[in-house]
Amino acid sequence: MASFSHQMAFFFRCPRNKNVQEPNKQKLHCVRIKGTKSFSPSGLDFLSQEHGIGITSVDHTENVQVFEQQIRQNIPTKKQLVDPYRQGMIIEEWAGYRQTVVIRSYEVGPDKTATIESILSLLQETALNHVWMSGLLSDGFGATHGMMRNNLIWVVSRMQLQVDHYPIWGEVMEIDTWVGASGKNGMRRDWLLRSQATDLVFARATSTWVMMNQQTRRLSKMPDEVRAEISPWFLDKHAIQEESPEKIEKLDNNARYVHSDLKPKRSDLDMNHHVNNVKYVGWMLETIPDEFLEENQLSGMVLEYRRECGSSDVVQSLCDPQQEGLLETGIPKCDHISVNGHKLSAEILEGNGFVGCKNQGPFSYTHLLQVKGESKNEEIVRGKTTWKKKLISIPFPT
Amino acid sequence: MASFSHQMAFFFRCPRNKNVQEPNKQKLHCVRIKGTKSFSPSGLDFLSQEHGIGITSVDHTENVQVFEQQIRQNIPTKKQLVDPYRQGMIIEEWAGYRQTVVIRSYEVGPDKTATIESILSLLQETALNHVWMSGLLSDGFGATHGMMRNNLIWVVSRMQLQVDHYPIWGEVMEIDTWVGASGKNGMRRDWLLRSQATDLVFARATSTWVMMNQQTRRLSKMPDEVRAEISPWFLDKHAIQEESPEKIEKLDNNARYVHSDLKPKRSDLDMNHHVNNVKYVGWMLETIPDEFLEENQLSGMVLEYRRECGSSDVVQSLCDPQQEGLLETGIPKCDHISVNGHKLSAEILEGNGFVGCKNQGPFSYTHLLQVKGESKNEEIVRGKTTWKKKLISIPFPT
Repeated sequence: MASFSHQMAFFFRCPRNKNVQEPNKQKLHCVRIKGTKSFSPSGLDFLSQEHGIGITSVDHTENVQVFEQQIRQNIPTKKQLVDPYRQGMIIEEWAGYRQTVVIRSYEVGPDKTATIESILSLLQETALNHVWMSGLLSDGFGATHGMMRNNLIWVVSRMQLQVDHYPIWGEVMEIDTWVGASGKNGMRRDWLLRSQATDLVFARATSTWVMMNQQTRRLSKMPDEVRAEISPWFLDKHAIQEESPEKIEKLDNNARYVHSDLKPKRSDLDMNHHVNNVKYVGWMLETIPDEFLEENQLSGMVLEYRRECGSSDVVQSLCDPQQEGLLETGIPKCDHISVNGHKLSAEILEGNGFVGCKNQGPFSYTHLLQVKGESKNEEIVRGKTTWKKKLISIPFPT
Repeated sequence: MASFSHQMAFFFRCPRNKNVQEPNKQKLHCVRIKGTKSFSPSGLDFLSQEHGIGITSVDHTENVQVFEQQIRQNIPTKKQLVDPYRQGMIIEEWAGYRQTVVIRSYEVGPDKTATIESILSLLQETALNHVWMSGLLSDGFGATHGMMRNNLIWVVSRMQLQVDHYPIWGEVMEIDTWVGASGKNGMRRDWLLRSQATDLVFARATSTWVMMNQQTRRLSKMPDEVRAEISPWFLDKHAIQEESPEKIEKLDNNARYVHSDLKPKRSDLDMNHHVNNVKYVGWMLETIPDEFLEENQLSGMVLEYRRECGSSDVVQSLCDPQQEGLLETGIPKCDHISVNGHKLSAEILEGNGFVGCKNQGPFSYTHLLQVKGESKNEEIVRGKTTWKKKLISIPFPT
């Protein structure tokens, strides 16, 4: 990726001089001129008062709310190159997006490193801000104007993540994201998470997205008008060079660890009114034994999504250690490990360049989330997670 | 609060010209000069390699990690007036702190408004960034250097929040926070959450903090050296003019709604290794019936903390509607409401300036979180939440 240098200013509140370089402020000014500041967040109540419109009609109330929302969100209606509030900018020959983020206090765990859920949430955030900056964002969760006209929403079908280093509390990071073609009807989205200070890449991710009809909840072809909107943004560049080709096996009732009766909470639903993907990962990781999580950290993850999870679904999370040496407790045994079907002792392994028991190499879990129905179970997502030893573990008494 | 105008620049990554106005970059440069970029996030592995230090010693590994953490966090060692990455600045005659934030996609619920947990997390974040900017922050969760020397951490004893409006996805907000004295051994911290575009205050909060010994987990007096550190930052200014004086009653087993067996997850623990306060609020709100939450939104909250919650505690959440008219389902009845002991019909109420059933006035719940022990229960937090009708409700099928 090309190095570049760029400066831009961001502006604090300056009520006496509002006409500074703030994009898309026009509509806000119009409303403020009406002197409505004391009535509502964006001063929309004046519509009812000045025009004598009652607020007993639900339709009218909804219209006012939609208009108010548009003004408060201030979504760009055309391509925007920089956003001072989001600390974001368009890069890569005008197609990619870069955002600077500081790892916040509530995004880290007891060991002060960002949780995997926080990292995934930041990837989601930058993806949406990319669409935001493109001028294509409509009134949906990343949906373009063309998608809205066709009643379509985005759903993720596959996600792959590699984490080499975890950012810590207060660390300044940069996230790059861009999109590309994926077959005829899909879209890829990739990300790089990098230290702002050293440029070192901490994490890489790639994902595949398809479109779903919001009413029928069935997958849809990509309409030509949507392709025309998004294809100018496509880059032929991959964050992860060798994408995991193997199919994830489907677990059954023989899985070692099973958590049942997982119920979505209100706070687990996103703007598409289904359980957010990040919550799936939370359910998957909760099923891994605490003793294992104390000693190890996630280094990679592949997720294959099969079905969305609604607010009334009751979910079961299964997981199974996938490598010999993980058989008893989920914690790797030190006396042997299997290579090409041959069990080798720790001494031999160390002599052959393996890291040995103190610095276990990657080991993995297979996961399945399913909706437990009365007659049969329906898959939500299959997953595979790979792990490496933490340098210092944080006890979690249970 | 005085109006003011201020501009400052923030900088994107610019590897070819690192010596731009980035505070506290010195240490990072020193490390980068060693050409260690390819080794570790901050290039600390060279310490082992250049100095021939093995990494088998846990003590040494811990030291390297602490040093690496300091460089990556880059905590200011003296007062810093602006932070371009956090979009923060010192205000109010050099004592308060203001930060600009954009409401992120994962901070809102299905109705696109920020969740109460997100608002509380942002308050926590700005409080910590205030300490960060002060130059007083040590290697703890908001603890000053003096507190660290005395092995002390902050714990919150009381929190009060008023929310008049909820920010929506993408809305640009400003959060002001400042501290003040609270008795001899405590500290107040207040916040204002305001629309960046209109200056309208959306939410106000105040809190009281005391110090706890990290080892004994007992409350402590404020040592003189800590008072000397923080008292120059005290402002005599209150975010909430009339603080709720009433004591919150303690619920017992007659409470209408009870959720038991609530167990902290790893992700609920914060850097102080106990359950974060925001999680408490989540547990409290989960206990309120979904039908009520669909129709209403929180307008105020008072929390009185009694005891910290550890990772192995099993928690019970009780709640009880506090006003007549809420008796059956938690949803206000429309046929009558009690005023000074007299039941009045909806018609009479409307004629007397009450908002009637469609726009119910505030009503409240009393809450208790407790650790359910074998012999007796121990209180974690008492709470009171007040509510107002949502304009448009979001169904949540159960």
